[in-house]
Amino acid sequence: MSTSKHVAVVGATGAVGVEMLRCLEQRGFPVGQLTLLASARSAGKTMKFRGADVVIQELKADSFKGIDIALFSAGGGISKEFAPHAVAAGAVVVDNSSAFRMDDTVPLVVPEVNREDVKKHQGIIANPNCTTAISLMALYPLHQAFGVKRIFASSYQAVSGTGAQAIEELANQARRWADTKREWDAAKLEHPPQVYPHQIAFNVIPHVDSFLDSGYTKEEMKMENEGRKIMHHPGFRASVTCVRVPVFRAHSVAISAEFEKPVTAEAAREVLSRAPGLDVIDDPSHKKYPVPLDIAGRDNCAVGRIRQDCALDNGLAFWVVGDQLLKGAALNAVQIAECL
Amino acid sequence: MSTSKHVAVVGATGAVGVEMLRCLEQRGFPVGQLTLLASARSAGKTMKFRGADVVIQELKADSFKGIDIALFSAGGGISKEFAPHAVAAGAVVVDNSSAFRMDDTVPLVVPEVNREDVKKHQGIIANPNCTTAISLMALYPLHQAFGVKRIFASSYQAVSGTGAQAIEELANQARRWADTKREWDAAKLEHPPQVYPHQIAFNVIPHVDSFLDSGYTKEEMKMENEGRKIMHHPGFRASVTCVRVPVFRAHSVAISAEFEKPVTAEAAREVLSRAPGLDVIDDPSHKKYPVPLDIAGRDNCAVGRIRQDCALDNGLAFWVVGDQLLKGAALNAVQIAECL
Repeated sequence: MSTSKHVAVVGATGAVGVEMLRCLEQRGFPVGQLTLLASARSAGKTMKFRGADVVIQELKADSFKGIDIALFSAGGGISKEFAPHAVAAGAVVVDNSSAFRMDDTVPLVVPEVNREDVKKHQGIIANPNCTTAISLMALYPLHQAFGVKRIFASSYQAVSGTGAQAIEELANQARRWADTKREWDAAKLEHPPQVYPHQIAFNVIPHVDSFLDSGYTKEEMKMENEGRKIMHHPGFRASVTCVRVPVFRAHSVAISAEFEKPVTAEAAREVLSRAPGLDVIDDPSHKKYPVPLDIAGRDNCAVGRIRQDCALDNGLAFWVVGDQLLKGAALNAVQIAECL
Repeated sequence: MSTSKHVAVVGATGAVGVEMLRCLEQRGFPVGQLTLLASARSAGKTMKFRGADVVIQELKADSFKGIDIALFSAGGGISKEFAPHAVAAGAVVVDNSSAFRMDDTVPLVVPEVNREDVKKHQGIIANPNCTTAISLMALYPLHQAFGVKRIFASSYQAVSGTGAQAIEELANQARRWADTKREWDAAKLEHPPQVYPHQIAFNVIPHVDSFLDSGYTKEEMKMENEGRKIMHHPGFRASVTCVRVPVFRAHSVAISAEFEKPVTAEAAREVLSRAPGLDVIDDPSHKKYPVPLDIAGRDNCAVGRIRQDCALDNGLAFWVVGDQLLKGAALNAVQIAECL
């Protein structure tokens, strides 16, 4: 990219919006002009970008005049309402919500997987679900080498995936426990949760996004639906249990994957060591495997616990961790913008 | 049982030992005399049982004279060394460690599954791995109805499974964070962990027990090995990822199970609703599914998120939660003693 762009960030004050600004800055994205858009509540406040204060403006239908690229991360409702205005004004939208992901006219992109799909856009490019994007960083290179048929996966999802209020809820619950209870057998607080249906501190909650008639959640089916679209693999099957855990900002996923071709742990490690955007951290005898507290803040995802699956004939089990706010959201969106 | 027994608890001061005393008391076990055994460090201290103080004695080879039933929960090394002395003195040992579980002469028992195996004992009866016992509470009734072939499972294991020091480690880390840092993006403490290889507060660790050459941990293979023995099902296969999570005392397990016969969520729910020791909590549209913070302290395990598996032809996905210290350890041991 030689010419500088007028970039808008919609939902600039959210957990992902803040990281979008950092990614634009740290990656040296050619931002000529920056417009920060948010709700009326945040309008007039300022955020720093390259050392300068940028005043936040209220998001309106006519906010997009002259914008080249609009990075949306303000929820599906805002995307559905305002992305068409951005496109009409001539901007290309990179949308972090689920609003357009399964729309046939909208590319859904993880640049390390299907960068070429960016070219097919008609104004909107969708950023995938965070757990799906992080999982595909390891699964797609394996698919290229061995041909994935199906996976069984369980997630350990950080509260950042729900947003800034959820981060505060976990922090507040932990502080409240420490300030008033401090005993391990009195871990349940009287104070009711606001964001999650159950207390998240010292708990895990098998409920991310809303439930479908099948008993799966929408979040759980994103792995199959979005995975098929991103990998161009309509036969891919995925049975997933998505679980929220008391971790702040990196997601982990335990995966058993079945392949067409025979596969060994050694062959998989060799493939994964060459995969872009992915670190292999896999020396368990020295206690080396990725954990979310170490991967938080890192651009690269990480994979470890790579082993031949003992219940599948051509199978692998492995463990992928990625920063939800970065590869799961802001970083991937900025990488898509870089493809433009 | 009509006659009262002289019961010994070995490892009485540990997290499981304390619960063993509570279970003996609350279930009205016919304890005629109680001997508490622990390391020299704890000898001379007292613990309450039925309102009276019982003085802890130092565990020695000759501690078992006159004992009818010895409940061991002091680690595999102690069991290997002292269980033979207890048996030689005429006691029946119920051992919570992994020392004798796979020994062909030692029954491995979950009373709701294979109560009859207790009769085959030659002095020692083994209590299963906590994650395995809790999982089988739901899996075995389904196996009886539909014939389980294999499972893919991921665990969310509480720190109580590691013992009292691990409980303190999580509590101390959470207190230290709240007392000094309090910020979500500074969740990693400088203070190094003592019990776990990584900080457990605000983190998850895919490492429970030691690693095998296969890349699985011993803990992960217990589901298959112990599951085969308890269910009398040598063809059972299980690929498991065991993960420690910052929860104090109840384990959760996400399972995808493949069966011989066709199965629906409705049929599974019907089977599970009649299973002993198990509650079905499965009304996700009203946010009802088991979470570990609610199941802590309960004798019964719970199952929810029951759904037809979307990546298996005769498959079910479900979520089982059980108190690690109770069904995962002390309660199951006392239930075995009740079978005697």
